[in-house]
Amino acid sequence: MIIIGEKINGSIPSMGRAIAAHDEAFIREIARKQAESEVDFIDVCASVGTGEAETLAWLIGLVQDVCDTPISVDSPNARACVEAMPLCKRPGMINSVSGEGDKLDVVFPAIAGTNWKVMALLCDDKGIPHTPEGRIRVLERILESAAAHGIVHDRIYIDPLVEMLCASETGATTTLNVIRYIRENYPELHISGGISNISYQLPCRRLVNAAFAAAAVSAGMDAAVLDPLDRDLRGMVLAAEALRGEDEYCIEYISAYREGIFGPLSGD
Amino acid sequence: MIIIGEKINGSIPSMGRAIAAHDEAFIREIARKQAESEVDFIDVCASVGTGEAETLAWLIGLVQDVCDTPISVDSPNARACVEAMPLCKRPGMINSVSGEGDKLDVVFPAIAGTNWKVMALLCDDKGIPHTPEGRIRVLERILESAAAHGIVHDRIYIDPLVEMLCASETGATTTLNVIRYIRENYPELHISGGISNISYQLPCRRLVNAAFAAAAVSAGMDAAVLDPLDRDLRGMVLAAEALRGEDEYCIEYISAYREGIFGPLSGD
Repeated sequence: MIIIGEKINGSIPSMGRAIAAHDEAFIREIARKQAESEVDFIDVCASVGTGEAETLAWLIGLVQDVCDTPISVDSPNARACVEAMPLCKRPGMINSVSGEGDKLDVVFPAIAGTNWKVMALLCDDKGIPHTPEGRIRVLERILESAAAHGIVHDRIYIDPLVEMLCASETGATTTLNVIRYIRENYPELHISGGISNISYQLPCRRLVNAAFAAAAVSAGMDAAVLDPLDRDLRGMVLAAEALRGEDEYCIEYISAYREGIFGPLSGD
Repeated sequence: MIIIGEKINGSIPSMGRAIAAHDEAFIREIARKQAESEVDFIDVCASVGTGEAETLAWLIGLVQDVCDTPISVDSPNARACVEAMPLCKRPGMINSVSGEGDKLDVVFPAIAGTNWKVMALLCDDKGIPHTPEGRIRVLERILESAAAHGIVHDRIYIDPLVEMLCASETGATTTLNVIRYIRENYPELHISGGISNISYQLPCRRLVNAAFAAAAVSAGMDAAVLDPLDRDLRGMVLAAEALRGEDEYCIEYISAYREGIFGPLSGD
């Protein structure tokens, strides 16, 4: 599993307050904890009304003060993502492009010929297609554009998009079907997504998140934007990967347990 | 979800000791707690070397001392199951039949014309088939025999059989594929299974169990033999049912939370 730590995001209330208060110690500490939990990328999303570029730059600096983990530069503004690339000490991930507007034309030329990865959302100017077929059409357009810029599938992380479970009876099934289709037809593409979207407005969100993560990973998702400090979720995601037959004798699951990524803490 | 509480089983060490010590208070208490957690059946499995019939009868009596929950009479000996039927105050479940030996010929005539349910395992005298196709062949034989006795699909709970995850790379995928096939082709059959088999020999078994339960329920499992007092597992199974699109606006999930089936306890 490729884990993208989600905690440095201004839309999370405690992080939003820390950003507003310029609480550098708090933000560095959250970055450090995520790095220590062996995430593959640390997502950085300013989520501020004005001054996004400055806030992004400042946050990227704080993360790089404390760790070497590659950054996932997260903004709905593709230009803001591209402008932040030179601030990163090593290639990270652009989060995100989609079929909307000119995003593909802004980001793909910028990452062509680099080792940067890209998260691609399966929506376009008409919104999120309701059917698996509609999302696959957006996928094909994104892959065509990527191919034209020489960006190989292994650098692309597809987010099939996750709707709120309480508002859509067929949303989760659609997403899981898209995941299965991509895994079967494009074995080199990565499949990711924001796990916690599924549980908005529901009680015990962590259980809904965990159930969805297990179902999505067992269907073929191999990367996830999640709270890496949720130890149960980390263990469950690794278990779900083993369910898919991609962890012989559960060696990765057992190793992560031994390294303390999940399981009881010594103080428990 | 149809929940079959698994805790009165002599193969669980603490229950095995209580059975050996004839600790009636302990066993009644476990029965009462499971009934209070709103299970649909309470499984009763003696798992003793000798005197199985007497032990089963005694355990069934203890459960019925404290609750009205239907009993799942659990023995690898089909005759022992059938002999215990008259001891049950209301129709329960025979757990289990399979394609092995003469089990079908012992159990199906006994439950024909009753309201008893039956758990049917997809194995036969040659063992557990390794391929989905092999298990489907056993299924078809079981359904033919059931039809000959007028036992409708709604009374049959198929256990597609779950192998230890650490010993079989393809076992979980096979089981999940069988679940999807049955759900698609036999919409009236129930699909169940022993969740905790998946996690033998692994650390943090509850995480592996939860990941498998979520994947299996989202694939079509609608019943499960599990520890009903594992509140996180109960919540996750309900969430996974909603993922399958079978809980409009998550009403069942939210109701179960309000009834206290899962979620933080007041003492937490």
